[in-house]
Amino acid sequence: MPEQVPVSRAEQDRARYEPLTSSVRRLIDATIRSEADEQAVRQAHALIDQAVALLSSRLMPGSFGLRHDTDGNPMVWGNVAIGLRNAIAPPLRVHHQGGRAWAEVTLGAPYEGPPGQVHGGVCALLLDHVLGATAHRPGAPAFTGTITLRYLRATPLGVPLRTEAWVDREEGSKTFALGQISDHDGVVTVRGEGVFIRPG
Amino acid sequence: MPEQVPVSRAEQDRARYEPLTSSVRRLIDATIRSEADEQAVRQAHALIDQAVALLSSRLMPGSFGLRHDTDGNPMVWGNVAIGLRNAIAPPLRVHHQGGRAWAEVTLGAPYEGPPGQVHGGVCALLLDHVLGATAHRPGAPAFTGTITLRYLRATPLGVPLRTEAWVDREEGSKTFALGQISDHDGVVTVRGEGVFIRPG
Repeated sequence: MPEQVPVSRAEQDRARYEPLTSSVRRLIDATIRSEADEQAVRQAHALIDQAVALLSSRLMPGSFGLRHDTDGNPMVWGNVAIGLRNAIAPPLRVHHQGGRAWAEVTLGAPYEGPPGQVHGGVCALLLDHVLGATAHRPGAPAFTGTITLRYLRATPLGVPLRTEAWVDREEGSKTFALGQISDHDGVVTVRGEGVFIRPG
Repeated sequence: MPEQVPVSRAEQDRARYEPLTSSVRRLIDATIRSEADEQAVRQAHALIDQAVALLSSRLMPGSFGLRHDTDGNPMVWGNVAIGLRNAIAPPLRVHHQGGRAWAEVTLGAPYEGPPGQVHGGVCALLLDHVLGATAHRPGAPAFTGTITLRYLRATPLGVPLRTEAWVDREEGSKTFALGQISDHDGVVTVRGEGVFIRPG
């Protein structure tokens, strides 16, 4: 018999909620793009209401907030940019390399602003998050002080986008970060700069 | 017998998709906050996958884009800030009054950044959209050129927020707009300014 490997509660929860959330992401997309007939839409609606009732049989009060797994690792599973359990989050997976923070993501129909384009506010969400990631320190998350975004050209839906940021300079608890979003051809569509503050 | 009132296709679609999208919004929230047992989560997941299959039996290609009803009125039902069929959208309902654009909305768990607070990037989405709304003209939507946001204090989840914007000045096809988000006590949490451009 294979050896039994103990599985932590956080791993169990991840295995349960990550695929569920992926399905909810597909549902958000299909709700926008469906051209199914009236009966199918009505049936789908009833199924969704049943799913809500099942999941709501026990709900945590308030928002997910910041929780920790049994090893003390932070879980921000409700976060709108990166949250494992937040179907609004693409989710962004932020990597750190050589002083840079970066994330690659393809955004579909649910992130639309102008037809066929990513909404300017969603570009702001990506850049705010990745710019801020340059300023976080273990146990000392940084808050956005100021952010400025310059929209150079349209950011297209449906192609891989790269959002990256780096530290320009630091002054005490303030980090001045620069960043950009570039499209699948490497063309920069939005430039951003931000000041992030670690409360002391 | 009551008189039969002809109902337009757009009205039929609204009556079909608005409640469906509201249910998907409740599902997004419950997916984050559920503490239901494993069996309930598994059942809910299966129901959601069935709903996705039903809605996906016919899908429009690409994103929703800009469509028009039979009276020629624009429908931006896929838009991530205001879209009737976009469950990510709170949705924002932008009003215009005396040269101001404003929207009131309460944001729950799905819009979280720091614990208990609205994500800075979501504040950017609200302000980008409402600032931009001051610059749109019939048939001539405006695109964001530059936007700067100053985060003065935390924007709380779960309370009514007011986002408002007004035109500071106009230069040709450029609109310079100012705006802010204030909380339920009327305290300003984020200030924004933006330059919006109508392509000529």
